[in-house]
Amino acid sequence: MLRTHTCGELRLDHINQEVTLAGWVQRVRNKGGLIWVDLRDRYGLTQLIFEEESSEKELLEKAAILGREFVVQATGMVVERTSKNDKIPTGSIEIKVTALEVLNAAKVPPFIIEDETDGGDELRMKYRYLDLRRNVVREKLQLRHKMMQETRKYMDAQNFIEVETPVLIKSTPEGARDFVVPSRTNPGEFYALPQSPQTFKQLLMVSGFDRYFQIVKCFRDEDLRADRQPEFTQIDCEMAFVDQEDILSTFEGLTKHLFSTVKGVELEEVQRMTFADAMRLYGNDKPDLRFDMKFVELNPIAKGKGFGIFDDAELVVGICAKGAAEYTRKQLDALTDWVKRPQIGAKGMVYAKYNADGTIKSTVDKFYTAGDLRAWAEAFNAEPGDLMLILSGEANKVRKQLSELRLKMGEDLGLRDRNVFKPLWVMDFPLLEWDEETNRFHAMHHPFTSPKKVDIPLLDVNPGAVRANAYDLVINGVEIGGGSIRIHDRATQQLMFKHLGFSDEEAQKQFGFLMEAFEYGAPPHGGIAFGFDRLCAIFGGSDSIRDYIAFPKNNSGRDVMIDSPSSIADEQLTELSIQLAVKK
Amino acid sequence: MLRTHTCGELRLDHINQEVTLAGWVQRVRNKGGLIWVDLRDRYGLTQLIFEEESSEKELLEKAAILGREFVVQATGMVVERTSKNDKIPTGSIEIKVTALEVLNAAKVPPFIIEDETDGGDELRMKYRYLDLRRNVVREKLQLRHKMMQETRKYMDAQNFIEVETPVLIKSTPEGARDFVVPSRTNPGEFYALPQSPQTFKQLLMVSGFDRYFQIVKCFRDEDLRADRQPEFTQIDCEMAFVDQEDILSTFEGLTKHLFSTVKGVELEEVQRMTFADAMRLYGNDKPDLRFDMKFVELNPIAKGKGFGIFDDAELVVGICAKGAAEYTRKQLDALTDWVKRPQIGAKGMVYAKYNADGTIKSTVDKFYTAGDLRAWAEAFNAEPGDLMLILSGEANKVRKQLSELRLKMGEDLGLRDRNVFKPLWVMDFPLLEWDEETNRFHAMHHPFTSPKKVDIPLLDVNPGAVRANAYDLVINGVEIGGGSIRIHDRATQQLMFKHLGFSDEEAQKQFGFLMEAFEYGAPPHGGIAFGFDRLCAIFGGSDSIRDYIAFPKNNSGRDVMIDSPSSIADEQLTELSIQLAVKK
Repeated sequence: MLRTHTCGELRLDHINQEVTLAGWVQRVRNKGGLIWVDLRDRYGLTQLIFEEESSEKELLEKAAILGREFVVQATGMVVERTSKNDKIPTGSIEIKVTALEVLNAAKVPPFIIEDETDGGDELRMKYRYLDLRRNVVREKLQLRHKMMQETRKYMDAQNFIEVETPVLIKSTPEGARDFVVPSRTNPGEFYALPQSPQTFKQLLMVSGFDRYFQIVKCFRDEDLRADRQPEFTQIDCEMAFVDQEDILSTFEGLTKHLFSTVKGVELEEVQRMTFADAMRLYGNDKPDLRFDMKFVELNPIAKGKGFGIFDDAELVVGICAKGAAEYTRKQLDALTDWVKRPQIGAKGMVYAKYNADGTIKSTVDKFYTAGDLRAWAEAFNAEPGDLMLILSGEANKVRKQLSELRLKMGEDLGLRDRNVFKPLWVMDFPLLEWDEETNRFHAMHHPFTSPKKVDIPLLDVNPGAVRANAYDLVINGVEIGGGSIRIHDRATQQLMFKHLGFSDEEAQKQFGFLMEAFEYGAPPHGGIAFGFDRLCAIFGGSDSIRDYIAFPKNNSGRDVMIDSPSSIADEQLTELSIQLAVKK
Repeated sequence: MLRTHTCGELRLDHINQEVTLAGWVQRVRNKGGLIWVDLRDRYGLTQLIFEEESSEKELLEKAAILGREFVVQATGMVVERTSKNDKIPTGSIEIKVTALEVLNAAKVPPFIIEDETDGGDELRMKYRYLDLRRNVVREKLQLRHKMMQETRKYMDAQNFIEVETPVLIKSTPEGARDFVVPSRTNPGEFYALPQSPQTFKQLLMVSGFDRYFQIVKCFRDEDLRADRQPEFTQIDCEMAFVDQEDILSTFEGLTKHLFSTVKGVELEEVQRMTFADAMRLYGNDKPDLRFDMKFVELNPIAKGKGFGIFDDAELVVGICAKGAAEYTRKQLDALTDWVKRPQIGAKGMVYAKYNADGTIKSTVDKFYTAGDLRAWAEAFNAEPGDLMLILSGEANKVRKQLSELRLKMGEDLGLRDRNVFKPLWVMDFPLLEWDEETNRFHAMHHPFTSPKKVDIPLLDVNPGAVRANAYDLVINGVEIGGGSIRIHDRATQQLMFKHLGFSDEEAQKQFGFLMEAFEYGAPPHGGIAFGFDRLCAIFGGSDSIRDYIAFPKNNSGRDVMIDSPSSIADEQLTELSIQLAVKK
């Protein structure tokens, strides 16, 4: 090693030892005959000192020309500092340097490499290797490392086998777009990159692997919304001979294990809620349970009092913001404008303040008596000091709008604490959802999800009402994982493909191998996949996944650091038997 | 769970407990009023018993129609067997079944699902999910699982950070062919799949990650020789502030850890050998050290005695096969024919038997006296009973031929025991090797390998003589890993590209980001990558990697199970702005 110690480990115990450190120059302070250098590596920061009286002249000259981010090796004696720095673990000592070697010089970096940086997003993406030098960024990837190791420890202890499934697979247009890979040796044919290892993990269950997991890259060629990446990582799992309850308890166990070992947080039991309740009470299939503020439906008491907007609405529904009665008129107007923005789309908002003096003041006093409003307050369980916010309209739309408003109020009132974690199982999802664009039903999760047995008769008469054995893990309003009990027999799988609009031929061409596998003794099975990038971001207290990925792509799917994608040589195209349909 | 216990865990202790098992029907023996069923899962085999006297009639009828590979759930009492089977851990008990449910029927499988199968290669590939049911196959993947977990445990304990590098990167035609991925959002441009994460792991060193590892899929679009796969897995590692010795000791540590924890084998210190010695003594840069049989060069004593073939040869070199003097004339003729096959390419072979009576009998007695032959025997350190085998010709060629012969003799004499492990570091590889086809030097490892400092002056005058700071880990004649100390400054990297025939522009276009990174404070660093599939095969005692991959491709790069690669829809091609250059 080019060092005897790292820059993070020297303490008073080491005084009078000769040590050699290697690292990056973080800062140089030059007082003429006295030079201090802060030397940095992944493990910490140690102060080097060069003194005129004790050092040779050349050494001082060498130190004087050190620039930021130079890579150096320094040998010297550990001495006690006269003025200690209690902000860093090595702050009691410094190194009186007797030999210095510059291992590599550095140009002035394009942005400041400290926790607070002056670099903009694009610049930091282009020089990602420099951005990764900043402690705050590197620590996010160290968190990710820890999450991976602890995930595997738990899964291994639970008898899961880690199996690598193939990356070069077959294109199946159902779902999102595939990335494809032209085959040179099979001209005109293509591999596809997996959107998930779904069919392979099901085949492993058919193989009797019993419990499978993998932390695996998956790929989706989608138009990138903010905070989506074309390649992302999943914790992918499958179990045989289980029912839903077994999967929930196994992965509740994983979640608790990760919180306990990585964050030192002991979670309580994970709450559970049906999809129907989540939509009714929070207008959202991934409710943020860090705060209550449940929806209260007001149809019986708000309708029929002559207020036309409510009278015409399918649903009148509101939330009660605790202690927000003191919102000013200006704040309330701003809130009304906020819900009327096109992104939210409400036509307006009614509010009622439950004042400290017990009176209730609403924007619709014209239509409602004090007694009416008191009935509202009772419905909301409101107390003096609370603010009731009410939207109305078509049920599905108004729930979505109120969900946004609820989240905003939670944010404004400081109820969405990044250090509080409220995981939730959302269950009993619909099997199918109607797609306006293609004018047919799509699988809400994927075509391999099993319908609830009692609902199968509904498939022909009311497909939208069929519930699936499907569940999502939600933490703080973010969908972290989702899974289901799968179909494990050919007949049901064929029925499912039929309802999704596959011809028998299409189903056979794309998934014939899976349906055939089901005929050779497939056990009941189910599983789950966690979005690992997002799980890491939640643990790190971030909204964005990008910083939790070592080398992310930008919103156009480009890696601006290596400049990819890029053109390839004509010979490569020829070998692959493809041509460009565009001019280069 | 659909079971209370697995099929591998019940013992005499469980007698009189009611249990529920689930699994596959391995075998049914029907004696009329008495039916035995062997039920199998990943954990073992348990015998079920159905008796006329104690079971209801319907139960017996249900059991009677069970076929091989049916999936069933059985509930019953654990009872002691009258005739125990000490070949399986559950052999002391059986289950007196009181309830049976068929969870799934099974068609008769296309081959026998037992350790010995009647299925041919192609059939087992097509029904890989059934082949994986066989214990001997599944155990190979369980070994792989164990290897992965232990690798990570060791690396984590050594402070390595696991970082996932991107899969969608940039095509760099140097090296093998890339698989490429057309970008939909950047028409005419392509991503490439990584042949290795080489440049990214070097950037992580520039970022100060200090120690990186990853178990990662890599991709090479090569014409598949036997036992190559287009996608394969590497244990990929890199360390900063190290010299070669640090890397060798760290990964010797990993190797020992794996042998100890996975195989219970405590390795001795890993031997070391220079590339030059490996070629001189074994004719091979990956010598199998499970047996000695070193090359002995005979030029001084074999030439100049009138035997023209030796006189004209650049090198006369042989091996001594201990105790093989009793080979018959027929065996020796067969051996001579073997070395003369085109795959080996020797012109002929000279041998000399050191008989038990002390006489030496050779095929060239005409030219050599008894004294001459005794001098040969001395050079070989031969004893009575040994057989000396000698080839001659152009040095490089004859070494290669003799290496093949040495391996064959080792095999024939039973010296290549699969339960003996002899790891070896081969060091000081040449930096460059001459490529006859392109008529220029290529990087022997890759363009990022650093030359030995003392040899840099040779770059201009004798490039082939420049040694690299490169090393391979070889186990039992198989290359398991390879790595090097890297170049970490722009000037040397540019010099290297120049010697590899890159124009400045090409070098900049492909690797500009890396060379630029070297200007911002790159630490000295180096690393290694292990071929994980092959490492697993060595641990499992196999020559073939295919069984250690869950879903391998065949020799034409096809996945015959899912039938991939395959054609894709015209709309997909259009969206990707490409056209086929072949008719579909």
